[in-house]
Amino acid sequence: MEKELMLDTVLQYLAEKRFTALRTLLSDQQGADLAELFDEIEREKLIVLYRILPKELASEVFVEMSPEQQKLLIDSFSDFELRETLNELYTDDAVDLVEEMPANVVSRILKVSAPEKRRVLNELLKYPDDSVGSIMATEYVALKKRMTVADALDYIRAVAIDKETIYTAYVVDDTRQLVGLVTAKDLLLSKTDAVIGEIMEENVIFAKTGDDRESVARMFDKYHLLALPVADREGRLVGIVTVDDVLEVLHEETEEDFAKMAAITPTDKTYLKTSVIETFFTRIPWLLLLMISATFTGLIISSFESALAASVILTSFIPMLMDTGGNSGSQASVTVIRGLSLGEIAFRDAFRVLFKEARVGVLCGAALSVASFIKLMLFDRLLLGNEEITLTVAAVVCLTLMITVLVAKVIGCFLPILAKRIGFDPAVMASPFITTLVDAISLLVYFSVAKSLLPI
Amino acid sequence: MEKELMLDTVLQYLAEKRFTALRTLLSDQQGADLAELFDEIEREKLIVLYRILPKELASEVFVEMSPEQQKLLIDSFSDFELRETLNELYTDDAVDLVEEMPANVVSRILKVSAPEKRRVLNELLKYPDDSVGSIMATEYVALKKRMTVADALDYIRAVAIDKETIYTAYVVDDTRQLVGLVTAKDLLLSKTDAVIGEIMEENVIFAKTGDDRESVARMFDKYHLLALPVADREGRLVGIVTVDDVLEVLHEETEEDFAKMAAITPTDKTYLKTSVIETFFTRIPWLLLLMISATFTGLIISSFESALAASVILTSFIPMLMDTGGNSGSQASVTVIRGLSLGEIAFRDAFRVLFKEARVGVLCGAALSVASFIKLMLFDRLLLGNEEITLTVAAVVCLTLMITVLVAKVIGCFLPILAKRIGFDPAVMASPFITTLVDAISLLVYFSVAKSLLPI
Repeated sequence: MEKELMLDTVLQYLAEKRFTALRTLLSDQQGADLAELFDEIEREKLIVLYRILPKELASEVFVEMSPEQQKLLIDSFSDFELRETLNELYTDDAVDLVEEMPANVVSRILKVSAPEKRRVLNELLKYPDDSVGSIMATEYVALKKRMTVADALDYIRAVAIDKETIYTAYVVDDTRQLVGLVTAKDLLLSKTDAVIGEIMEENVIFAKTGDDRESVARMFDKYHLLALPVADREGRLVGIVTVDDVLEVLHEETEEDFAKMAAITPTDKTYLKTSVIETFFTRIPWLLLLMISATFTGLIISSFESALAASVILTSFIPMLMDTGGNSGSQASVTVIRGLSLGEIAFRDAFRVLFKEARVGVLCGAALSVASFIKLMLFDRLLLGNEEITLTVAAVVCLTLMITVLVAKVIGCFLPILAKRIGFDPAVMASPFITTLVDAISLLVYFSVAKSLLPI
Repeated sequence: MEKELMLDTVLQYLAEKRFTALRTLLSDQQGADLAELFDEIEREKLIVLYRILPKELASEVFVEMSPEQQKLLIDSFSDFELRETLNELYTDDAVDLVEEMPANVVSRILKVSAPEKRRVLNELLKYPDDSVGSIMATEYVALKKRMTVADALDYIRAVAIDKETIYTAYVVDDTRQLVGLVTAKDLLLSKTDAVIGEIMEENVIFAKTGDDRESVARMFDKYHLLALPVADREGRLVGIVTVDDVLEVLHEETEEDFAKMAAITPTDKTYLKTSVIETFFTRIPWLLLLMISATFTGLIISSFESALAASVILTSFIPMLMDTGGNSGSQASVTVIRGLSLGEIAFRDAFRVLFKEARVGVLCGAALSVASFIKLMLFDRLLLGNEEITLTVAAVVCLTLMITVLVAKVIGCFLPILAKRIGFDPAVMASPFITTLVDAISLLVYFSVAKSLLPI
């Protein structure tokens, strides 16, 4: 059913108090779709609808809802209902919830939680936002080496309902050190009397709680994982990350990078849900900063004012030179930023990257210069008869292009690597900053070349 | 073991012909890591190493290797070995392989394949590159409604080894219509005599073979899927997509978008593996195109030559105005491009987006104008005593800023939506093109405002 039609039907059933029909209708839906639907529904109706849902579906929907709607529901919950809802959440989802709620809701959540749950939550909340610890769940299946396959399957059947995944089970020793893993496929394909210690895979890929969550996401891609165990500093198994969390991390990190590269402060909200004022505040600081930087480029023009007054034709090439320099720099910087972000480029490759961009810069600069020269001399001068464009003017423009493109490529590749080295996010070294810097350089080069070749 | 150390050890063992030690060493490694390692190894040694690997690990490594290395191996295979290797591949991996190989290798692959495999391959190769059909595997578990859980588990145990996932099994009727799904968790938690038709989930999310692979990738994120069934036009189940393929699709699509936004032709190769010449050819066409576009901006300057000669101070604001316009436009375009790409914005939202960007544009324009005005009048004129900056000049600059930022925001949000509507990739409407266009507009606005306010 189309989303709009669904919304209308739900509201109509609700108005007519046809609760049984409503429950049947809603029960057939996916949690994520209902969460989207509920986002459009006002407070009082939302609370009624939520209570109509079968319990399991209700908690699926709750996890997927926006923090605003979650807060509305929590405010309507009794302590008992809140505890029930929290009990249905995996720890990673509970941590997400706590991080999004205002202080008074958080203290209520912690108050109604069982002491053990509260302890785990407090523990997980200590991990930095971009660490693996902050996205892991603590509900995993842990087996012992001496179990048989039949024991393991029985154990999994008993605990499955509470675990985030049962398709990978981890084998730990008596001190909770991770010693191996078995997949549900291994268990199904092995004889029931086989011993876990003999069928388990021993070379287990794992992450540490402090690892960067983005680097862990890349491990899922590389090793085709469904889940990854997480160990603390002492090597004890403390949690797992599942592939659905990784999809979310990748989504967030990618959008953050796109935003930073366009000089926008990243936000979690979707575009249409962000207010005009919020959008304004994600953009204006960067525009201001870049505008102020660009005034320095203006200073360069001012200081060559007499030269420009003497040969106004020079002014008309400024946009082309600035744009080409900026584009050349962006190409290099975005390529290198992605390479750094994907772990394909490291600081030790700095020299290789520089040397490569220098060669690409020479090639691009030469090609653009030749194209410009032909355009200037054949098209502008011969065809259009523009007498101001002398051979010397063409030479000034082409030489400037050559140098600017080369410098832009070198700066464009080097600044992101440098930023990463000194602990900044390379993504902010993308187009806008590189462009501003390259603009200034291209004008300096332009006027210097002009002064030495032209009688000004 | 560190990668460099591992490489040295492997080469040393190989030189000393310690094949048993080598096999033990390699067997402990992950397929993806060995593929990376093998990428650094020359042809003759590669062939020897590959044959040392246990069969299962060998095919894991084969799938992960670069097309160049795969071709080296295939050329060294007998027809029998090639058939054996192909038999180990899932159809989606086989399709990837065939797509990367030169024609003579492809015809050899098809020749040695069993007729049924050849038919399936030929069928899958017909799907467009960006469709779900091109990334699906045909190895899935299909159950019947009348089976019991015990039947289903027995069946899965029998066929598991050949299936890409056994954690989601699909239920089909006699005409292969998809009627439901059961997860391995459902099977493990149900009584063995329960009937599949009764425990299966009936509201199955599925894709069609012709669906866009990126939109399908988003479904995995939204619904937390591990696998997604794919139906043909008649609704018959023909394949599955698994979450590991989706991670790869997301990775490729994201990098493609980043490249396009920086005016680079996307490529599959990593930065350090792409040659200087290849890099040059991914960049030069766009630089040329953008350079030519930017010369039109130069024409605008030329046509206001006399105005500029009369008031050279105006020239010094050109970089700031152009850059600020470009940055404002990029912010809007990148935001909207991402919204379109994630399906958060559709064509029907065009008016809402335009209205929103217009308001953000007014706010940003006003803030930047006020900041500029203060800077020009207080800092430049009063503090630095720059007499050329009159109140009128400041007014011209601030009015231009206001208009340019507004126009840039509107164009920046509208062009990507328009591009999508007429079937182009919105990503090419990103920063470089918007910048070039906005540059021209900002100068036109600037000179028009200047002409009407200043005595030039």
